Amino acid sequence: MRKVAVVAAGMSRFGVRQATFRELAAEAGRACLGQLPPELRRRIDGIVVGTVMPERTAFQSHIAALIAETLGVRPRRLSARVEHMCQSGSAAIRHAFAFIAAGLADVVLVVGVEKLNVPVRGEAILNMGCGVDRDWEAAFGLTAPPAFAFAAQAHQRRYGTTEDDLTAIALKNRRNAARNPYAHFQTVPTPEEVRCSRMIADPLRLYHCSPITDGAAAVLLAAEEAAWDFTDRPVWVLGTGQAVDAFTLANLPQDLSFWPALREAAGTAHAMAGTHPQDVQVAEVHDCFAIAELIAYAGLGFCNPGEELDFLRSGGPDYGGPVVVNPRGGLIGCGHPLGATGVAQACEVFWQLRGEAGPRQVPGARIGLTHNNSGMGEHVVILYGRD
Amino acid sequence: MRKVAVVAAGMSRFGVRQATFRELAAEAGRACLGQLPPELRRRIDGIVVGTVMPERTAFQSHIAALIAETLGVRPRRLSARVEHMCQSGSAAIRHAFAFIAAGLADVVLVVGVEKLNVPVRGEAILNMGCGVDRDWEAAFGLTAPPAFAFAAQAHQRRYGTTEDDLTAIALKNRRNAARNPYAHFQTVPTPEEVRCSRMIADPLRLYHCSPITDGAAAVLLAAEEAAWDFTDRPVWVLGTGQAVDAFTLANLPQDLSFWPALREAAGTAHAMAGTHPQDVQVAEVHDCFAIAELIAYAGLGFCNPGEELDFLRSGGPDYGGPVVVNPRGGLIGCGHPLGATGVAQACEVFWQLRGEAGPRQVPGARIGLTHNNSGMGEHVVILYGRD
Repeated sequence: MRKVAVVAAGMSRFGVRQATFRELAAEAGRACLGQLPPELRRRIDGIVVGTVMPERTAFQSHIAALIAETLGVRPRRLSARVEHMCQSGSAAIRHAFAFIAAGLADVVLVVGVEKLNVPVRGEAILNMGCGVDRDWEAAFGLTAPPAFAFAAQAHQRRYGTTEDDLTAIALKNRRNAARNPYAHFQTVPTPEEVRCSRMIADPLRLYHCSPITDGAAAVLLAAEEAAWDFTDRPVWVLGTGQAVDAFTLANLPQDLSFWPALREAAGTAHAMAGTHPQDVQVAEVHDCFAIAELIAYAGLGFCNPGEELDFLRSGGPDYGGPVVVNPRGGLIGCGHPLGATGVAQACEVFWQLRGEAGPRQVPGARIGLTHNNSGMGEHVVILYGRD
Repeated sequence: MRKVAVVAAGMSRFGVRQATFRELAAEAGRACLGQLPPELRRRIDGIVVGTVMPERTAFQSHIAALIAETLGVRPRRLSARVEHMCQSGSAAIRHAFAFIAAGLADVVLVVGVEKLNVPVRGEAILNMGCGVDRDWEAAFGLTAPPAFAFAAQAHQRRYGTTEDDLTAIALKNRRNAARNPYAHFQTVPTPEEVRCSRMIADPLRLYHCSPITDGAAAVLLAAEEAAWDFTDRPVWVLGTGQAVDAFTLANLPQDLSFWPALREAAGTAHAMAGTHPQDVQVAEVHDCFAIAELIAYAGLGFCNPGEELDFLRSGGPDYGGPVVVNPRGGLIGCGHPLGATGVAQACEVFWQLRGEAGPRQVPGARIGLTHNNSGMGEHVVILYGRD
């Protein structure tokens, strides 16, 4: 298996954007490729786009070809769009990685993009139902907030987790987002504002949830031989894992306060990388809801199951702690444009490991991790490292 | 890179089906996995689903997880849906191949599925517009038939191709389909019926076009070490190539009578396999319209550019010729359920190389090829061989 590096990264501003699906992808792609001279651009021989539902929100399929042509890339070895609901961006990175590792492509552009805000707000909300099983769950009204609320309630029952614990996570991520010019939210609410925000699904209040966001992100991956031509500071993909417990809530393990597939995905990634959870200094974790980040602390091995609250309350995931979780502001602060999220996480880790994260910089970060999930039973973990 | 084999295959009946998206995928998946004992089923560690627009036709995304759970597969290493419009099925096979070749997964189920016929026929037709650039081409009325008609007209001008040549291809494929119980069409029209069928886009008549079809197909891929546990007659993936000239018609090379990206994709596949076009005895070629098969003869190297008519008229692509093209009946005979087509092509090659194709059997076939395109400028070629 060949070594693979990230050699460039770029993002669009996240938010409720007056831009089309194509324009968002172009904004991120150009931010990623803008510095490259033409002779290096021509060496891009593949494209993988992570996106979930442009068929609904832009009446457009055939996505990889659309984005390649928009960006002036002509794929000679690999062209595809990859979808895995909320983890589509990380899945896209994994697929580019697999093709390069196997020797089937050399330099692959990965774009994650989603345009979720459409003129009719009700339609934007209903579209999210595409992610839930239509026959067995969506038909009975299940959406993401109540599903994750079940996990929060399980964690409360088992460990005494409070709304204030969830609020602490939300505030941490909003503070970080306020230092990130790409983030959907640029302001920090007061604890009182979070506590008094609208109840969405008990115990999850509005500010414990990620918003409906438009955005795009891009990274360029290259085989080791090619990487050095693109940058003198490549960030290596050290390992990756993906695992599934189940799709529908009904088939998940009964105790929702711990997610076995996350532990399995992280274990696969660390085994491949030859690293341990304690080696990670910066982690982009899938906080679609605050409870998800809390549960992920144990799944990712940053603490033992049941010790998530100690880890959080002692400042473990904040600056100064052993691993800074969501320095870019997470999904709660940056928003969650489905296919874009996993790629935006990779952008942040790329910048953090190169010391380019400005006011968000985690000092001396050498190993970074991204965690992306789609539902509580499906997880992707990718590990990155610098020389 | 590890060797990869196809070790099982199965299909749903293609047609206008009274079945949901999920039911079609289940039918193919069960046909593929039905013979496997439980201990072998549990070794499936990945799933890749090729499909284009379930978000429109089934209001469902999050596809890989849905199909895995429906089939009782728990992916521990790989789960994704891959989309590349009409070549989504072949793209899915390539992605499973890449993960196995790179050592990231061992046994991966590939399902191709599409439910195109919806209750409102106008919506079914409009949905196909998702495959065309919305801003620049669909907005001006471009759909697939006129695009391929431009290629047919170019071929007519340059080589004197007649409607009867296109009819000969359609009739060959309908004859083959009539021997294939999975095909959409089970009857053979008379030459007169084809000649008098409705003009769709000059010179393409109704019977020169593939229909709007529902269906699914599945293949199981395994690394060499695992393959022998699943079957004593594995069919090896010898090589694969994908290449893109352009997406929009406006950016394609001016002469539409030859497709450079097809030659490039086939060249990549043969270079990887160490084979030549003349080594291929059976080829599943993307005849979305009859002209596409004609042009592909040269792109795939079965004859030189400009000699397609000689090759066709001398029986080159029929039984008894050097390479039997579309023995299962092609897209014209079997229908074209987008994501299912590439996987159905692989099923046919699997059966042909194992001598299991019944009345369609190509005697002594050792090397088979599938060709799948999405538009005239984007092509995938996969080569398969038996020991």
